Amino acid sequence: MKPNRRVTVAGGAITPFIGKFHPDFIWKKHPDFGVKENPSLEQLLHRVALGACQDVGIDPAVVDRGYVGNFVGELFCHQGHLGAMAAAAHQGFLHTPFTRVEGACASGGLAIAAGVDAIQAGADVVLVTGVEVQTTYNAKDGADFLARAAHYSQERSIDPFTFPAMFARRTQAYCQKYGVAPAALAAIVAKAYSNANRNPNAHMRSVTLTEQQAAETSDNNPCFLDNESLNPWLRLSDCSQVSDGGCAVILCSDEGLQRLGQGADRAVEIHACAVSCGPLGQVPDYTRMDVTAAAASSAYSCTGWNAKDIQVAEVHDCFSISEALMCEALGFCNDGEGTQLAAEGATSLQGPIPVNTGGGLMGFGHPVGATGVKQVYELYRQMNGLCGDYQLATSPQRGVCANMGGDDRTSVVTLLEKN
Amino acid sequence: MKPNRRVTVAGGAITPFIGKFHPDFIWKKHPDFGVKENPSLEQLLHRVALGACQDVGIDPAVVDRGYVGNFVGELFCHQGHLGAMAAAAHQGFLHTPFTRVEGACASGGLAIAAGVDAIQAGADVVLVTGVEVQTTYNAKDGADFLARAAHYSQERSIDPFTFPAMFARRTQAYCQKYGVAPAALAAIVAKAYSNANRNPNAHMRSVTLTEQQAAETSDNNPCFLDNESLNPWLRLSDCSQVSDGGCAVILCSDEGLQRLGQGADRAVEIHACAVSCGPLGQVPDYTRMDVTAAAASSAYSCTGWNAKDIQVAEVHDCFSISEALMCEALGFCNDGEGTQLAAEGATSLQGPIPVNTGGGLMGFGHPVGATGVKQVYELYRQMNGLCGDYQLATSPQRGVCANMGGDDRTSVVTLLEKN
Repeated sequence: MKPNRRVTVAGGAITPFIGKFHPDFIWKKHPDFGVKENPSLEQLLHRVALGACQDVGIDPAVVDRGYVGNFVGELFCHQGHLGAMAAAAHQGFLHTPFTRVEGACASGGLAIAAGVDAIQAGADVVLVTGVEVQTTYNAKDGADFLARAAHYSQERSIDPFTFPAMFARRTQAYCQKYGVAPAALAAIVAKAYSNANRNPNAHMRSVTLTEQQAAETSDNNPCFLDNESLNPWLRLSDCSQVSDGGCAVILCSDEGLQRLGQGADRAVEIHACAVSCGPLGQVPDYTRMDVTAAAASSAYSCTGWNAKDIQVAEVHDCFSISEALMCEALGFCNDGEGTQLAAEGATSLQGPIPVNTGGGLMGFGHPVGATGVKQVYELYRQMNGLCGDYQLATSPQRGVCANMGGDDRTSVVTLLEKN
Repeated sequence: MKPNRRVTVAGGAITPFIGKFHPDFIWKKHPDFGVKENPSLEQLLHRVALGACQDVGIDPAVVDRGYVGNFVGELFCHQGHLGAMAAAAHQGFLHTPFTRVEGACASGGLAIAAGVDAIQAGADVVLVTGVEVQTTYNAKDGADFLARAAHYSQERSIDPFTFPAMFARRTQAYCQKYGVAPAALAAIVAKAYSNANRNPNAHMRSVTLTEQQAAETSDNNPCFLDNESLNPWLRLSDCSQVSDGGCAVILCSDEGLQRLGQGADRAVEIHACAVSCGPLGQVPDYTRMDVTAAAASSAYSCTGWNAKDIQVAEVHDCFSISEALMCEALGFCNDGEGTQLAAEGATSLQGPIPVNTGGGLMGFGHPVGATGVKQVYELYRQMNGLCGDYQLATSPQRGVCANMGGDDRTSVVTLLEKN
């Protein structure tokens, strides 16, 4: 629903998103292995919480409330209760209410939505953080942890890599319905890497990948699923990254903006933040994201906007097919045309509707709980001309974020505007 | 802060809280072992979600928003993303926003707080659920899971049973500061069991425990900690139960009350719902619950109430010392006098300030995410004369809930009134 009290994003902070193939990620073949360690969940959380306060020039004691978006800290880091962990970042947070919210990969978006609610409830300065560490276990264990975003007892068995298989299933259904070749998704992948190569915070900032490489199965780009019927429908390059990282934004009421030391002039308004859920374990149509479409419909209807008003988008490309389906759910094109947008360049940095300008989940990376917060912060940065080498030529004024959890079973669609 | 839009509890539902020593709990020596299974997390969640709708006579489609309080479904049940799992309870929930919130043992209280915010943000009928299943792993594994409520990397090593040890530490500090014998806590324990014996939904409904039994170490009531210095300060009977269970309430705005088929006449107002956090891993004084005291101060100050106005209380007796400390933090007595309240009968069903009338976490049980929701539902039931054998002689009009997470690092204090 449309906020009664105006809500703005006043500033924020982000860490680099790192993991395998990122030059700073410490692993057994890294020269600093055994000497340095990757940042912990707590370090990332504190860094962005304090960084966001610093960005808007406030003492942490000015914050009325805080939220933490996180999916599975309990598993990768043996740590829950992240609200109280956030509160430990600074003595100014003593007795400030912090709440962790979770909705699988939509945890960050739900944290934004909770922050918007907090302002409706009377808070004036709200800190919304998102954080995840996922590199502490190997890929197979990690895939098992992430399968908790699905209906575990019913869906875990589809493949050791449950979620890749679930989106291979969507790719198969989509390609068969519309007569599209899976290689049509390669343009989406290549755009993600190309954008990430311009983004110093991106997980894949140093990895180049051409459309042709993404379209072909190879030793470096295998079809890796055990599930034989789904195996041909997904390559490694179709997947988002297993990343560590954090992001935070400061949300303000108009009264809150007056408390800031800086940043009020950069404020970007949140016109709508709509959440929708569908039943876990039940997807009515693999070729559509019905839950994201419902959230988008709700967000558009309460602002009077439609897809034609959108000048930039952050969408949840957890897999290449997801970006196509999200573009359709958000109304950027008709059903079945989502792959053409990237192929035609419409979603590139130079196109009419740039999508995932910093590289998205495939290129920028996907520290799960951070993603939904990062999407909002990315639009804020594009609207303020802060994106450096991937800055759009004309800073956009209106944008949309779509952050999705599980197999499109929770979705958060946020509409932002800078006047 | 005090809600601008009036919020009421219109009704709810609860499952029995079950686990070891409950006659219906299926384990290897139960006659139905191998024939029947204990209810799953999903079953409990759906049961209370639908039960609460039924209790107020609404179709689930009438619900504007939903929340799920849960601590560690990812560990005990391999299941996260419980918002979307709740949405699967009924087709009427399709595209309804559901969010899971977590703050360790305060997860349920945070779900209530989120529901209050939702109504401030414009929702009229909000379903707040809390659920936990903890009996799927053995006690030592379970203790490791629950240690995620503490600062795991710094505090896990205190004892294999981390939380019992942390509260033994509080008992030790308290007893030494005030010259109290640990046996002084036995009156709190005996009251919990006595109340639970009157409560058909209580985990310990069939287990009797006298004050003398609670005061003495025995084969049935051992000091069980490995940590030698803390071992003497905690007996098994000082601990809350490892329970499975769920609870849900329907929160309404005044407009929402008009949508109900029944229950509006039973509505209990939430005058305040205050959340406070303290830094995880840092407790300034083991003899005080400073975070709960801060939340209580905030709640009292925005209503103009004080402790003398309270006629019934639900406090977070995760251990016997916790009830004493909570009574002090809520202002029912001075610091150091918390154990006397139970010893003198002040907190009994017949006393001036009945505390945990259904048995509390020690007697009623402690399915972690459900607890904070259950507290609110218990007060609603006492205020409406629905508590059967443990109903207070005069239905109370004003009450307080205090739901705490970790070592008092998140606390939610809620003030309720029925006119």
